[in-house]
Amino acid sequence: MTKHLESDLDQLQRDVLSLAASVEEAIYKAIESLQTRDLELAQQVITGDEPIDQQENRVEEECLKILALHQPVASDLRRIATVFMINTDLERMADLAVDIAERAASMAGGPAIKVPAKLQRMTDLTTTMVRDALDAFVHLDADAARTVCRMDDEVDRCNVEIIQEIIGIMRLSPDLIEPGLSLFSATRHLERIADHATNIAEDVIYLVEGEIVRHHPEALQKR
Amino acid sequence: MTKHLESDLDQLQRDVLSLAASVEEAIYKAIESLQTRDLELAQQVITGDEPIDQQENRVEEECLKILALHQPVASDLRRIATVFMINTDLERMADLAVDIAERAASMAGGPAIKVPAKLQRMTDLTTTMVRDALDAFVHLDADAARTVCRMDDEVDRCNVEIIQEIIGIMRLSPDLIEPGLSLFSATRHLERIADHATNIAEDVIYLVEGEIVRHHPEALQKR
Repeated sequence: MTKHLESDLDQLQRDVLSLAASVEEAIYKAIESLQTRDLELAQQVITGDEPIDQQENRVEEECLKILALHQPVASDLRRIATVFMINTDLERMADLAVDIAERAASMAGGPAIKVPAKLQRMTDLTTTMVRDALDAFVHLDADAARTVCRMDDEVDRCNVEIIQEIIGIMRLSPDLIEPGLSLFSATRHLERIADHATNIAEDVIYLVEGEIVRHHPEALQKR
Repeated sequence: MTKHLESDLDQLQRDVLSLAASVEEAIYKAIESLQTRDLELAQQVITGDEPIDQQENRVEEECLKILALHQPVASDLRRIATVFMINTDLERMADLAVDIAERAASMAGGPAIKVPAKLQRMTDLTTTMVRDALDAFVHLDADAARTVCRMDDEVDRCNVEIIQEIIGIMRLSPDLIEPGLSLFSATRHLERIADHATNIAEDVIYLVEGEIVRHHPEALQKR
């Protein structure tokens, strides 16, 4: 690898990590705005999406520039293709954080509904998955990536518990059906964010081992 | 462009169109299974996801092979990068069709809930958007792509109407809260499929005009 390509790839990696940190913060703030009925915080997440989109466009442009300039092959090419896919997943996560903030904003004006306590655990798990998936990418660590994929099962269990609790609330209080639906949507958005973190982890396994696990759950069991 | 690269790009385009046709069929069947409470049809969509995933993996591999083999630059490179992004969007759409079919399967066993008539209109719009977005890509037609983006507004209006109708049902019949939530989820999944079709249309505009409209709605108004 030439020195120039190496330094471009390092810069690309730094930019994608910085994007991931912004996305992680957006997720935390979006859930906090939901829990605290903080309209201002929700608005912050919504307007904060614009700079995140710019970060994401920059990473995409960088990928294309490196491809055009250095015409990398083999493992470098795969690495750039992986950044390209990670970038798309991070963008979707940021969009989902905005979706959560929009639900929070709509709930802030209506009747208060109890937010299930488990949502905090689910949020902590999800943001850890995002961080660990990116770490696995930086260190090319397929084992760490497999751990991220397995964490998704606990997120799914939290999701089911929370939704059962919301259904219970809606049954008892038909007046809470609308905020209940918003809370339900927000929970599903968070679950989908964890799915995107899983996508990234699966892409890392593919990058390291050349094995496509994205649609082959059995490949996760191998270790 | 060499003859070899040209024929590889043509093949890639054919494969992505064939993937899109499979995805479109999955969306139709998923919604039909929801409307007719047809568990078998829902299962067909769920098991049909595996061959769609294989198609998607093949397109991804083809993109990487063309990049490595031909090291294309400029417009060819952008075209391949666009196929790569379209492929990701189609894969997510197929996953969302499976999500809808899973909701349909869970609803088939429970109490019957009236499926809002508007859902058919929303489905027709969404599958048209998928087809037209791919056509716009094949013909490099930015105007047609802009039309797809605008169709998303009508999908969003359908979505709001359907959800209001579901809320009304749930208020009247607390026993229908669970199937109501499933129907709500399915509608949101369909709306998200239309968002992915919009993503594709936006990527086509970028490919043709070099202008990023993905996060700049004002750029859609220019014509």
